[in-house]
Amino acid sequence: MGSDAVVLLSGGLDSTTVLAYALKEGRRCHALSFSYGQRHSVELDAAKRVAAALGATRHLIAEIDLRVFGNSALTDDIAVPHFASGEEPPEGIPVTYVPARNTIFLSYALALAETSGATEIFIGVNALDYSGYPDCRPAYIEAFQAMANLATKAAVEEGAALSIRAPLISMTKAEIISLGLTLGVDYSLTHSCYDPLPDGGPCGTCDSCRLRARGFAALGMEDPALGRRPGH
Amino acid sequence: MGSDAVVLLSGGLDSTTVLAYALKEGRRCHALSFSYGQRHSVELDAAKRVAAALGATRHLIAEIDLRVFGNSALTDDIAVPHFASGEEPPEGIPVTYVPARNTIFLSYALALAETSGATEIFIGVNALDYSGYPDCRPAYIEAFQAMANLATKAAVEEGAALSIRAPLISMTKAEIISLGLTLGVDYSLTHSCYDPLPDGGPCGTCDSCRLRARGFAALGMEDPALGRRPGH
Repeated sequence: MGSDAVVLLSGGLDSTTVLAYALKEGRRCHALSFSYGQRHSVELDAAKRVAAALGATRHLIAEIDLRVFGNSALTDDIAVPHFASGEEPPEGIPVTYVPARNTIFLSYALALAETSGATEIFIGVNALDYSGYPDCRPAYIEAFQAMANLATKAAVEEGAALSIRAPLISMTKAEIISLGLTLGVDYSLTHSCYDPLPDGGPCGTCDSCRLRARGFAALGMEDPALGRRPGH
Repeated sequence: MGSDAVVLLSGGLDSTTVLAYALKEGRRCHALSFSYGQRHSVELDAAKRVAAALGATRHLIAEIDLRVFGNSALTDDIAVPHFASGEEPPEGIPVTYVPARNTIFLSYALALAETSGATEIFIGVNALDYSGYPDCRPAYIEAFQAMANLATKAAVEEGAALSIRAPLISMTKAEIISLGLTLGVDYSLTHSCYDPLPDGGPCGTCDSCRLRARGFAALGMEDPALGRRPGH
């Protein structure tokens, strides 16, 4: 059997695929989610479904308050942009960017890795399809790993090496879905929408919904999560 | 006038000296403290006193929950060790070490730097007197800075360089106190104890109290914070 790993789990398509990947590698997975004042607790419900269905060893939810810093459509009252079919989002970093979000998430993962004896942290970042967020690029992940290996008691006392694993970082959304399907992931459990409908279903027109739909379309498939949406 | 800076402020001797130092450099200081399930809210009271007295532009307190990770005498029910006069603490990293604490604190500071337009983060870590914590060493601080400069929107869109400033990192406790006194710091406002008495006064026998007392003794001074302790 493999060793212990921390897996950052939002309950979305990418992090769910990563959890399946880490489990397939034989890791005992400590799934970690965050309650961070996001407008959609439906995201945490998805994370709980996924952790239970895929077989995480445990699932921790850390409460943090990113609203104190403001400046993001995912935590503030700034409107999430929606796009008509064929319309393209503007260039640059979108308003849905949360300041230092992955750095904060990985820092908590580092604390959990230290207390649980995990030697790997898995994160579902993706440099191609992930809307141009700076903290989704390979150079960022490598720099975090270098820092992490100077930060912990294990690194100092035991010389233990910690790996930040980002297996999806160079994949297209279609490739991620293909990988997940070969791993047996049931994507109807997952939730990706930035701005869900009142009943928790995906809006279908935010950037995250559009990337997801394009991924399934490239494979000639219907998104199984759309079955949870009324009218489908 | 200088630019904006985030200053991590615990309300202890070191971080208070750092705030005075950053203000002396002409920075507009955004002080940032954490409520993290520590047993002593007396620490946050000290941070509030210090931020107001020294003239921080604003003081934010972020609520985070490190207890979810366990394993530290500062957040759990593990007893803080006390030492008799002349007794030395054991070698190695003490039980008061909080996993990945400075990494989590600096990550929040990074988010605040991004939303407030600050180009510097000041932290009062100290490699000499700080009980051997891994995340107080110069190599760690440099690695965090390298990571931070790949993590943010400002770094990507504007090429802005962020500096992690740790001006105390090579100083002895006596040198830190000397610096603070030349900057006009009133150390009676500060609080350093890991295990305060029921009335909020310092215990005098934990590692943090001992380091502090030794610093004042080396300068031939009495610790002015002891005036807040009953019986003195």
